[in-house]
Amino acid sequence: MDIVRRVHSMREISRQARVKGQRIGFVPTLGALHDGHSALMRRMNEQADVVVVSIFVNPTQFGPHEDLERYPRDLTGDTDRCVREGVDYLFVPGVDDVYPEGPRTWVEVPELSERLEGKSRPAHFRGVATVVLKLFDVVQPHVVAFGQKDAQQVAVIRRMIEDLLLDIELQVVPTVRDAQGLALSSRNRYLSPEEYEAALALPRALEAARHVIGEGQQKAEEVRAAVREVLDAEARLGVDYVELVHPETLQPVGLVGEQVLLLVAVRCGETRLIDNALIARP
Amino acid sequence: MDIVRRVHSMREISRQARVKGQRIGFVPTLGALHDGHSALMRRMNEQADVVVVSIFVNPTQFGPHEDLERYPRDLTGDTDRCVREGVDYLFVPGVDDVYPEGPRTWVEVPELSERLEGKSRPAHFRGVATVVLKLFDVVQPHVVAFGQKDAQQVAVIRRMIEDLLLDIELQVVPTVRDAQGLALSSRNRYLSPEEYEAALALPRALEAARHVIGEGQQKAEEVRAAVREVLDAEARLGVDYVELVHPETLQPVGLVGEQVLLLVAVRCGETRLIDNALIARP
Repeated sequence: MDIVRRVHSMREISRQARVKGQRIGFVPTLGALHDGHSALMRRMNEQADVVVVSIFVNPTQFGPHEDLERYPRDLTGDTDRCVREGVDYLFVPGVDDVYPEGPRTWVEVPELSERLEGKSRPAHFRGVATVVLKLFDVVQPHVVAFGQKDAQQVAVIRRMIEDLLLDIELQVVPTVRDAQGLALSSRNRYLSPEEYEAALALPRALEAARHVIGEGQQKAEEVRAAVREVLDAEARLGVDYVELVHPETLQPVGLVGEQVLLLVAVRCGETRLIDNALIARP
Repeated sequence: MDIVRRVHSMREISRQARVKGQRIGFVPTLGALHDGHSALMRRMNEQADVVVVSIFVNPTQFGPHEDLERYPRDLTGDTDRCVREGVDYLFVPGVDDVYPEGPRTWVEVPELSERLEGKSRPAHFRGVATVVLKLFDVVQPHVVAFGQKDAQQVAVIRRMIEDLLLDIELQVVPTVRDAQGLALSSRNRYLSPEEYEAALALPRALEAARHVIGEGQQKAEEVRAAVREVLDAEARLGVDYVELVHPETLQPVGLVGEQVLLLVAVRCGETRLIDNALIARP
């Protein structure tokens, strides 16, 4: 595996791969890689000739009081993992190379960026969409993998690809959970043992929603109440939102349709956690 | 020359050209082509193996009270011109193909979009940047040509290419003028004979600026006064702005630097006209 640090080098590698007719698969990440990322890499390995993983802690998607500075960084562990997963190129550009003149041009997907996560993180998805487009422009992938864990991010990227007429196939990979059911996240390492126990209410709450919908409940209000009941029972959790939305438009639904996306965000101590479930009506 | 009407067809043509190692040159236009566009096509013919011209009257760059509906359309004349200039593909997509779901994702270059033209046309450059990126994504050009006539547009596109890390070379082609000196524009055909005569004050005003700068005048205020004097002498012209700015940042300058961009916009009857000159200090 090669570690590529410069935009112009990565661009040249992708150019060569395309000239050879190779299919490029790409997984953009913030690093601090875990088994969730490995699932993305494996998916790309199945579908592409050349697999590129990027690690870039993108400053423009962090708010002024967020964890940019303390966001976990572990290039040694990340490199080992990428080698194990058969990645061909690990692209680790510097901020000066990705934003040589600072951030001045933005990609905006306003309808999907303002609600839910966007409410507590107002510039987050603008930063995500912008940096992902920039990385796409450099890596020139045929296919990209994103995790269902970040469902709103998936909706934003899907729409960006569609609207900007990008010739890129988006693959969404199911959330990977630990043995207790907690969705893997680089931020889980912030949790104390007590907070970790409390956080397990998240997967239990999603399960409760599946259960009531499975039993025939169609009213979103009732499903949300079942979810809140589980979350509210944990004193260490502060609920930010529980919403049932259309999976692509992210618009709230009153009744559960053929498929509904349940989105949950909580504060657990100093840490913000999100989780979600795509639930089909029985 | 082939006329290509669908995004997916154009994409496939470009893909094939790239596989063959051909260099793609691209001229995006709104149609109603004139000798200014021909200069862009010729430049691309010198520099590329495959020349693509697009004609797309992009609704998102027109304001609600602008001339979208009556913008001149002449596909027969445009086709003849493209054949004469040795264009390989004339790409004429429909609005439904470029905005299949309507406009929902935007490219924004805020610092360059709000002043000058952006003041009277607030959403104009957002529409321009967005559609140009979309067309780039489909046509996949190596090199693109834009006219210096639309200097602010050039600054926006240059910055977008730079900031979004696009692997595209921008070529800026000097403004083409008629025998009387008026910069060619598809909107010139709106002018009555009397208005046309009045509009000739524009090139005379630019000449006046060159003259005073050539004589050693460095104060932007004095240069502007010389320009206004020429324009104000024409009763049929209403001056919108006369500004001396840095050619890339478009920030107003107090003193003429090594090179200054003089930007002028006037109303002439119902028609808005712009012109500009890049002037080097003697």
